[in-house]
Amino acid sequence: MSDLASLAEQLLSLHHGPRPLILPNAWDVASALAVQRAGAAAIATTSSGVAESLGYPDGEAIPPGEMFAAVARIAVAVSVPVTADVEAGYGLPYEALVSRLLRAGAVGLNLEDTDRSGDAPRLGDRDKAAERIGSIRRAADAAGVHVVINARVDSFLRGSGVPDERLEDALKRGIAYREAGADCVYPIWLTDADAIARLVRELAAPVNVLLRPGAPSVGDLEAMGVRRISVGAGLAHHTMARTEQVARQLIEGDGSAFLA
Amino acid sequence: MSDLASLAEQLLSLHHGPRPLILPNAWDVASALAVQRAGAAAIATTSSGVAESLGYPDGEAIPPGEMFAAVARIAVAVSVPVTADVEAGYGLPYEALVSRLLRAGAVGLNLEDTDRSGDAPRLGDRDKAAERIGSIRRAADAAGVHVVINARVDSFLRGSGVPDERLEDALKRGIAYREAGADCVYPIWLTDADAIARLVRELAAPVNVLLRPGAPSVGDLEAMGVRRISVGAGLAHHTMARTEQVARQLIEGDGSAFLA
Repeated sequence: MSDLASLAEQLLSLHHGPRPLILPNAWDVASALAVQRAGAAAIATTSSGVAESLGYPDGEAIPPGEMFAAVARIAVAVSVPVTADVEAGYGLPYEALVSRLLRAGAVGLNLEDTDRSGDAPRLGDRDKAAERIGSIRRAADAAGVHVVINARVDSFLRGSGVPDERLEDALKRGIAYREAGADCVYPIWLTDADAIARLVRELAAPVNVLLRPGAPSVGDLEAMGVRRISVGAGLAHHTMARTEQVARQLIEGDGSAFLA
Repeated sequence: MSDLASLAEQLLSLHHGPRPLILPNAWDVASALAVQRAGAAAIATTSSGVAESLGYPDGEAIPPGEMFAAVARIAVAVSVPVTADVEAGYGLPYEALVSRLLRAGAVGLNLEDTDRSGDAPRLGDRDKAAERIGSIRRAADAAGVHVVINARVDSFLRGSGVPDERLEDALKRGIAYREAGADCVYPIWLTDADAIARLVRELAAPVNVLLRPGAPSVGDLEAMGVRRISVGAGLAHHTMARTEQVARQLIEGDGSAFLA
């Protein structure tokens, strides 16, 4: 495990460096290599990008074996640490989740606190989510690797109430997850600058912001003290929109993208 | 086999329609759906694009099972006919090649006349290549599906001699492959307009041109009577260059692609 342990330490340290960790999420080997060539210090996967490239919708429709196989293909192809988006964990026991993650060569994970056990996904119980993070931390410790846990807080994606109530809920979750062993807290979907700044101040742990329309700029996020910036499926979708656009031009008779 | 038989007829007829068949080659489900949304009448795969997305170099390094699995994922996701780039056939007996192709849901194939049995790939024997095309045609007939055979002529990629000698070789190969049962002849790498026009005139079969730097425009190819235009890995590589560019911007602090 020594290589993985050292990659995990490397990934963790990137959350405490002079600049935020910027993660243009990848979905297959070719995109991971492109992102690495672009200068990424680590590769984060996007679960929906991986799923869509393999023909599955987002939301744990993909069999976990296929998701981990995609992560493993990426991990053997790049030289930087890999952190995997494993959605809500596919119902796997925490030991199996950690063991499959490490066998796939990844040293970090994104874990949602959405509960997918019912008919529709809903915001899960905070204590249960914290308990699971603690179990994952202990399983990782037992494996000798400080797996970097990026704990997703889905209060803004799936919570209810007015924005202030969601923010209070996110703060409580962030503190609970940090205390349980999370290395980074990821309030997905949050774009409000004041709320991001307050989370950064009060959590006293690295915060991950999803860059999406309405979010502050990278420079503003950095100035607020945000330590990790990712794009979810944004790069995959941007790329596929470009694929469609160039394909349409070609079908309409304009092949200039290929003749250049 | 009736669905496949009808998809195969549909694919074949696209080589004889009012306009050339334009194929912006896809490499995974997401790209195939993007190309279908762009209006493609069929989906052709790119073997190197598929291989690179899964972590393999081009040139039959990918296990055939992985290549056919990628083709199958695409075929179940799209509604138009699918034609698969199967390189030189992975050393599979022709019955196995046809059977795996059809089980993957594809109704056409690109087959190279490169010989990969030695240390380095080289232009294969013309008679052997023609014989194999004949065997594939008979195996497909036995399965009740007119599999659309796009016979690659590698004279310009791997042949030797001056351009005119290569053109004479390509003409002989094209005629032999057409007579053996090929539906389309694909002189990959050829960009010279006069040579393309002569092949179209003398082969009396649909010709596939690879759109790449130096090739005539789509409109000029259409005017010459070219019936099929594809891009090989061109769209995959164009897309991945875009992925790298946007990732680099993001890492350098410009997240405008995601904030728009």
